[in-house]
Amino acid sequence: MNHNYIKPDHWSIIEEGFDASRVKSSESLMSIGNGAMGQRANFEEHYSGDTFQGSYVAGVYYPDKTRVGWWKNGYPEYFAKVLNAPNWIGINVAVNGEQLDLAKCIAIENFRRELNMKEGWLSRSFTATLQNSVKVKVDTKRFLSLDIDALGAIEYKVTPLSNDCQIDFSPYLDNAITNEDSNWDDKFWDVLSINHDNEQAFIVSKTMKTDFYVCTSMQTQVSLNGAILNQDKTVNDSINQIAFTYNSKVSQGDTIVITKYGGYISDRNHDRNDLISVAKSTLEKASELGFDGLLEKQKQAWAKIWDMADITINGDVAAQQGIRFNIFHLNQTYLGTDHRLNIGPKGFTGEKYGGSTYWDTEAYCIQFYMATKDQNVAKSLLEYRYNHLDKAIENAEKLGFSNGAALYPMVTMNGEECHNEWEITFEEIHRNGAISFAIFNYYRYTGDYSYIPEKGLEVLIGIARFWQQRANFSASKQAHVILGVTGPNEYENNVNNNWYTNYIAKWCIDYALENISIVAREYGSDYTRIMNKVNLSKAEMQDWKTVADTMYFPYSEDENVYLQQDGFLDKALITVGDLPQSERPINQKWSWDRILRSPYIKQADILQGFYFFEDHFSTEELERHFDFYEPFTVHESSLSPCVHSIQAAKLNRMKQAYDFYLRTSRLDLDDYNHEVEEGLHITSMAGTWMSIVEGFGGMRLVDGTLSFEPKIPEQWESYSFKVNFRNQIIKVNACKTNTHFELEGQHDLDILVNGNTVTISPNNLVTV
Amino acid sequence: MNHNYIKPDHWSIIEEGFDASRVKSSESLMSIGNGAMGQRANFEEHYSGDTFQGSYVAGVYYPDKTRVGWWKNGYPEYFAKVLNAPNWIGINVAVNGEQLDLAKCIAIENFRRELNMKEGWLSRSFTATLQNSVKVKVDTKRFLSLDIDALGAIEYKVTPLSNDCQIDFSPYLDNAITNEDSNWDDKFWDVLSINHDNEQAFIVSKTMKTDFYVCTSMQTQVSLNGAILNQDKTVNDSINQIAFTYNSKVSQGDTIVITKYGGYISDRNHDRNDLISVAKSTLEKASELGFDGLLEKQKQAWAKIWDMADITINGDVAAQQGIRFNIFHLNQTYLGTDHRLNIGPKGFTGEKYGGSTYWDTEAYCIQFYMATKDQNVAKSLLEYRYNHLDKAIENAEKLGFSNGAALYPMVTMNGEECHNEWEITFEEIHRNGAISFAIFNYYRYTGDYSYIPEKGLEVLIGIARFWQQRANFSASKQAHVILGVTGPNEYENNVNNNWYTNYIAKWCIDYALENISIVAREYGSDYTRIMNKVNLSKAEMQDWKTVADTMYFPYSEDENVYLQQDGFLDKALITVGDLPQSERPINQKWSWDRILRSPYIKQADILQGFYFFEDHFSTEELERHFDFYEPFTVHESSLSPCVHSIQAAKLNRMKQAYDFYLRTSRLDLDDYNHEVEEGLHITSMAGTWMSIVEGFGGMRLVDGTLSFEPKIPEQWESYSFKVNFRNQIIKVNACKTNTHFELEGQHDLDILVNGNTVTISPNNLVTV
Repeated sequence: MNHNYIKPDHWSIIEEGFDASRVKSSESLMSIGNGAMGQRANFEEHYSGDTFQGSYVAGVYYPDKTRVGWWKNGYPEYFAKVLNAPNWIGINVAVNGEQLDLAKCIAIENFRRELNMKEGWLSRSFTATLQNSVKVKVDTKRFLSLDIDALGAIEYKVTPLSNDCQIDFSPYLDNAITNEDSNWDDKFWDVLSINHDNEQAFIVSKTMKTDFYVCTSMQTQVSLNGAILNQDKTVNDSINQIAFTYNSKVSQGDTIVITKYGGYISDRNHDRNDLISVAKSTLEKASELGFDGLLEKQKQAWAKIWDMADITINGDVAAQQGIRFNIFHLNQTYLGTDHRLNIGPKGFTGEKYGGSTYWDTEAYCIQFYMATKDQNVAKSLLEYRYNHLDKAIENAEKLGFSNGAALYPMVTMNGEECHNEWEITFEEIHRNGAISFAIFNYYRYTGDYSYIPEKGLEVLIGIARFWQQRANFSASKQAHVILGVTGPNEYENNVNNNWYTNYIAKWCIDYALENISIVAREYGSDYTRIMNKVNLSKAEMQDWKTVADTMYFPYSEDENVYLQQDGFLDKALITVGDLPQSERPINQKWSWDRILRSPYIKQADILQGFYFFEDHFSTEELERHFDFYEPFTVHESSLSPCVHSIQAAKLNRMKQAYDFYLRTSRLDLDDYNHEVEEGLHITSMAGTWMSIVEGFGGMRLVDGTLSFEPKIPEQWESYSFKVNFRNQIIKVNACKTNTHFELEGQHDLDILVNGNTVTISPNNLVTV
Repeated sequence: MNHNYIKPDHWSIIEEGFDASRVKSSESLMSIGNGAMGQRANFEEHYSGDTFQGSYVAGVYYPDKTRVGWWKNGYPEYFAKVLNAPNWIGINVAVNGEQLDLAKCIAIENFRRELNMKEGWLSRSFTATLQNSVKVKVDTKRFLSLDIDALGAIEYKVTPLSNDCQIDFSPYLDNAITNEDSNWDDKFWDVLSINHDNEQAFIVSKTMKTDFYVCTSMQTQVSLNGAILNQDKTVNDSINQIAFTYNSKVSQGDTIVITKYGGYISDRNHDRNDLISVAKSTLEKASELGFDGLLEKQKQAWAKIWDMADITINGDVAAQQGIRFNIFHLNQTYLGTDHRLNIGPKGFTGEKYGGSTYWDTEAYCIQFYMATKDQNVAKSLLEYRYNHLDKAIENAEKLGFSNGAALYPMVTMNGEECHNEWEITFEEIHRNGAISFAIFNYYRYTGDYSYIPEKGLEVLIGIARFWQQRANFSASKQAHVILGVTGPNEYENNVNNNWYTNYIAKWCIDYALENISIVAREYGSDYTRIMNKVNLSKAEMQDWKTVADTMYFPYSEDENVYLQQDGFLDKALITVGDLPQSERPINQKWSWDRILRSPYIKQADILQGFYFFEDHFSTEELERHFDFYEPFTVHESSLSPCVHSIQAAKLNRMKQAYDFYLRTSRLDLDDYNHEVEEGLHITSMAGTWMSIVEGFGGMRLVDGTLSFEPKIPEQWESYSFKVNFRNQIIKVNACKTNTHFELEGQHDLDILVNGNTVTISPNNLVTV
C-alpha cells in the first residue's frame, strides 16, 4: 500500500516525476468521467510501456460467455461486461519522424500530471528528449464534458526546445480494442463503417450479441502560436482504424497545438440511422464553443456539483483530498440523469467485477445521492430495481422458488444474474434485504411515501416471498432457520443462520406486511391493483408472519453476543492483532479453506446489521458487538472501513474512527489493497461520505426528524457538509467547540442536535 | 435410465439393430482395453453421426491449463487430462466410390454388436444399402491384445450382396485428434514424423508440455476369399495423417478382408530413438501370429483372468451379466503390471474427471485386486502413494501446512493435485484417511506387515501430521473440531465436523501411533531410518494423541445417531421417498444451493465410516444409522449403491441388498445416471464385486481369520466366487440351502462360517 506519490493538495490529484511503474495506478486514480462515459487516464500519444487502456460508454455492455471450472445448475450463461469502447483520444506524435513514446525517451523532465477535481479536467506536462536527441515540451489538457455528455475535448501542445523540427500529429479513432477481463478472448465489436468528412471522422460499430450501435467520432484542428493552420492532411484507414496526419514545421520555441473533440453517440439515446449526423452536429457545437468555451462550461458545471456535494475539512490536507477524491469520482460515475444506469463497482475506471449493479448501490450509495442531489435521483435508483422485478422473479425461479418470489441478482447489467460462483450467486442472498431496506431508507429520509404504493410494495412483496420460501423450520431448533448462505462477510461460505441474513430476512417480511396494511388502508386503488397482480392471500401472509415471528438468531450466552453464524465459536479465535503481518492480506496469502475456517471477517457483517438497524439496539449492545467482532475483522473489502468508522464515532472512539476514515477515504489514493491498477473502488466512496456525515456528523433520522451529534477528530480544525433534506438544504459546519447550522430553504426546520430540538430558519446561522 | 437395449446374456454385451441415438452409449459400454491402452468402441469406418472418438494410452497425459471462474489461492495451475491419442483403428471404406457411413445409408439391416467378455473381443456385423443402392455385408472383429499390450488387431470383412463392385479400403493413422474435455481447445500433440515402409506406417508425435513420445503404427493386409492380395496401394499423407488405399474389384458374394494391426509404442517403456523399430518388430510379430493366432492367445489370456476373477450367478441372467461386465472392465483398465499406473474413474472409456487416481482406488478398488490377483498388485497400488508422498507434502504446504504434513490430492496423475473447486480440492480432505486405511486393509487381509516398516509408516506419519494440524481446539466445545470440510457426501460443502472425516482423522492418528510403537519395538533399523528422516518428537506425538483423544463427534441424543455434520438436524428432513420423481436426479434438476441445504446424501457418508470400521460398532448401531440415513440418500454417486448393498445384506434386508446390487452392477448397462455416453464408472465396479463377496458372501477378516456369512437373494439359485487369501485360493459356492468351500492351495486353512470355525483343506469340498 501507500505508494505515497500523490502530492497532498486540497483540490487536485497531482503526480510529479515520471515513473513507468506508476502508470497503471495513475491511469486509475486520474480517470475521468461524466456519468455517460468515462476513461482511464491513458496517454494520448503512443506508449509502449505497461498500460491498461480503457474507455467505457455507460450502459453499453457485452454478454461475455461464462467461464467456470465446473458447471452448476443455475449458473448464468453469460457475464455482462462493461465494454471497452473504441479509443477516440489517441493522438500519435512524431518529432522529426521519430515517434514520441514516454517508454523510449532518453530523458523525461518536469513530468507533472494533475487531475483537477474542482474544475473537472486532467492535464499533463513534461519535457522529453527523444532518441533523436530532439527535446520538446508537451502540455496536454483533457476533459469529458458535463455539459454535452457525449463529448470530450483534448488540447495537446508541443513546443520544440532544442531546435526547429517537423511535428507530425496523427489523431485517430481505433476500434481494435479488447477487454482486459474477457473470458475467452472473444471479439466484442463489429465495425460497420468508417467515414471522414473534412476534419471529422466516424467509426460506426456495433457490439456483438447485444447489438448496441455506437458512433465514435473525432474532429481535429491544428494551430501554431494561436493561429489555425489550414494545412493538408493525409488520411489512413484500415478495417478498425482511421487516422489523420498533419505534418508541420515548427520553429524552436514555437508551440503547435492540436485540439481534438471526440466521443460516442449510441443508439441507447438516438435512432440508429442518425448516429453520424448527431455526432457531426455534436462535434460542430463543440468546435463553435471551442476548447476554452467548453472548459469554461465544465468549470461551471463542476462548481454547481461542488456547491452541493463538497465537504470541507480544515487542518488535514490528506483527509480533505481524500473526501474530495471520493465525491469527485462518485459524480463522474453516476449523476442520476439516466434511469437505466447504475453505479458500477469500478465505475469507468476498470473492468474487474463486470456488471454495473451490486447491493452496494442500496447499502452504500443511495444515501449519498439522496442527500447531495434531488431526491428523484434516489428514486430513480429504486425504480431501476422495480424495473428489474420480473427478472428477479425469473432468477428466483431458476433456483427453484415460485409464486413470485424475487431474488435480485448479485451482479447485473440488465436485471439478469451475471455472477457465477455458487457460494455468491446462489447463496449471498442477503443482497435482497438491502433492496427492501433502500425503499425504507428512501421513505425515512425523504418522507415521500408515494413510491411504496406506486412501485415499491411489489418489490417488498417479491422479496418477502423469497425469504419465506428460503427459510425452513428446524424441528431441532423449533424455529425457522436459513441454511447455506454467504453473508456480507464473504470469508464465510455456505454457513447456516448468518445472523445478518436472518435478521434482515425477518425485517423484510415484517416491513412488507406493515406496508401492505398501510397501502390497504390509505391507498385503496393501488392496493387493489397490486393485489390483483401478485395474488397474495391472507394464508400466505400468515405463513410469512410465522417465519418472521419464529426466526432463529444465533446467540452466545457466554460471550453475550449474537453469533455471526452457527458454529462461529468453534473457530480458533486468534485476533487480527496476533496475526503476523507476513500473512496479510489473507486473501493474497492464504488458500480459501484456510480463510473460511479462520475467524477473520472481510467486512462488517453483524456490524452491518447494527449499522442498518442501529435504533433496534442499545449503544451498549453496539459496543459489545463492535468489541467482539472488530478484532477479527481484516477489512479486506473496500466496504468495511466506512461502517466501522461510523460506529467507532458513535462509540466516541475518535482515534479509531479517524483511522478508519483515512482508510476508506484514501483506500485507492494510498492503495491499501494493492490493486489500484485495476481501477478504483467507486461504491465504497459513498461509504466515505457516510463516514463523515453519519460518522463524525452523527446524522440520523429520528422519527422523521433530522438529527446530528457532531464530533470532530483531533487532527481537524473544522469540517462542513451540506445535505438536501426534503427539498431544503442544511449546511453543517462543525468546529472543535461548536457546530454551525444553516438552512437554504423556504421554511423553518426543527432538527435534533445531541438530542435537543433546534429550530433552524432560512439564511440564519445557528450555532450549537 | 434403462435404455434396455443390451440383450441379456451370460458372457456378452450384445446390441441388435442400429440406432444412431445409442451410438455414444454403445461406444462406452463396449469399450476395449488391455491395461496399457484402451479405446471406445468407435466404428472403424467413417461415421458422420454423433460420436465420441476416444483412444487412450495409459500414463500418457497432458497438463491442461486450469479453467476456473474465479481464481483462489492454492488452485493448481493445470488439470492433468487423460489424453486422447492418435487414432490407429480407422479404415475408411468406399463401395463403388461411395463412402460407407452408417449415418447415411438407405438401409441398415441385421446390425449386431457384441462385446465378448469371455474372450475379450468386440465384433460388429450388418448389411448396409448405400445411397448408390449397392448392398454389402460387413463383419468386423477387434481386440486389444493382453499378450502384446502395445498391440491391437482388426479384421474387417466386406461382402457385396447386390452386385459386383469396387471396394476401396483406406486404413489410416490420424494424429488430428482433440480431447472432448479440453479446457481451452489447446493443441495437445506435436507431430514429429510420418513414415511408411511397405504395408506399415508410423506417426511419431509428442505430447506438448509433458513430452511423451509416442509412435502410433499400423500394418495392413488385404485378402479375398482367404487369399492374400498383393496389390498396389496409394499412399496419402498430410501433416497429421497417413492413409493407404487399396482398390479391389469384388464379385457379388465374395468376401474381401482387411486385417489391420496397430497400436502405440511410447517412451514410457522404450528409448525415444527406438520407437519406430520397436513398433516395426511388434507389428511383424503380430503379422507372424496372424489375426487368428493373436485371437487364440487373447482367449487364453482372458480365460486365465476369468479363472480367478469370475463370479457366477445362476438363475438371474441380468445379475450375471452385470457382475461380469464390472469384472471385465476392471481388468481392461488395470492389471497391476505397471506400478506407475492407477485406476482412473473412467478408465479408457471417456475423458470426464481427468486424472487417473482418486480415493476410489483405496476405498473401493484395492480389495478387488487384492483378492483376485497376486497380493503384489495391491502392494503396488500402496507404493504408488508412497512414491507420491513428497508431492503430498508439497500439496499440504501450498495450503499452509508444515513439518511434513501430507495431503494427498483429490485427483492426480503424477502426485500433484489437479482438481480446482475449492470445496473439493481444499476441503474434501477425508481422502487422506482412505490412504491410511488401505495400508491397514492390506495388512489385515494379506498379513504382510513388512510394507509398513518399509514404506507405509512414512505415509501414516505424514497423514497423521496433517490431521493434527488441520483440527483446532474449540473452546466452546472443549474438544477438537475439524471445520470447513466436504465429506464423502459431496452434496454438503464446507461443513463443520463431518462425522466421517473426524472419525477417520482420529483413526489415522491412532493407527499411526500404534504402528510407530510396533515398528520401534520390532523393526529397529527401519524405525531409526524413518525417525531420522521425519524428525518426529515425543512432544509432537503427544499433540497428535491429544487431538485424537479429544476429537469431537456430533451426536443427537434425540435421534440416537451420529450426525453427518454439525447442524444436520436443522434441515427440512423430507425423505427421498417423498421427493417427486420429477425432481430427480437432483444434481440435474436443482441448483447447487438447494442441493446443499437439502438433507439429500449423494453417497454413503456416515455409512461409509460404518463400512470401513464395521467392527467398531454393533449391528444394532449399524441398523439405526442405516435406517436414519439411507432414506435421505439419492445414490447419485456411482460409489453409493455398493456400500448400501453390503450393509443391507449384513442387516438381512435381502430385497434391498438385491436392488442395490442391481443398481451398482448394471449402473452403466442400464444407465441409471443418464451419462453412460461420457464413459463408464470404472472404480465403482470394484464396489459391485464387494457387494457380492462382502455383501452376499459376507466375507470379512476377523482377527486375521477369513470369515463368511453367506446369504443369497431369492432371485438366485446359486453364486460362486474365488478369493486369493494369503497365497491360497478359496472358492465359495453359495446355494439356497448351503455353501460349498474349496481350497486351491498347499495347507489347511481355518475359516469362519457364520461365526463357526471350519477347516478347509486343499482340493476337498466342504459344505456348510
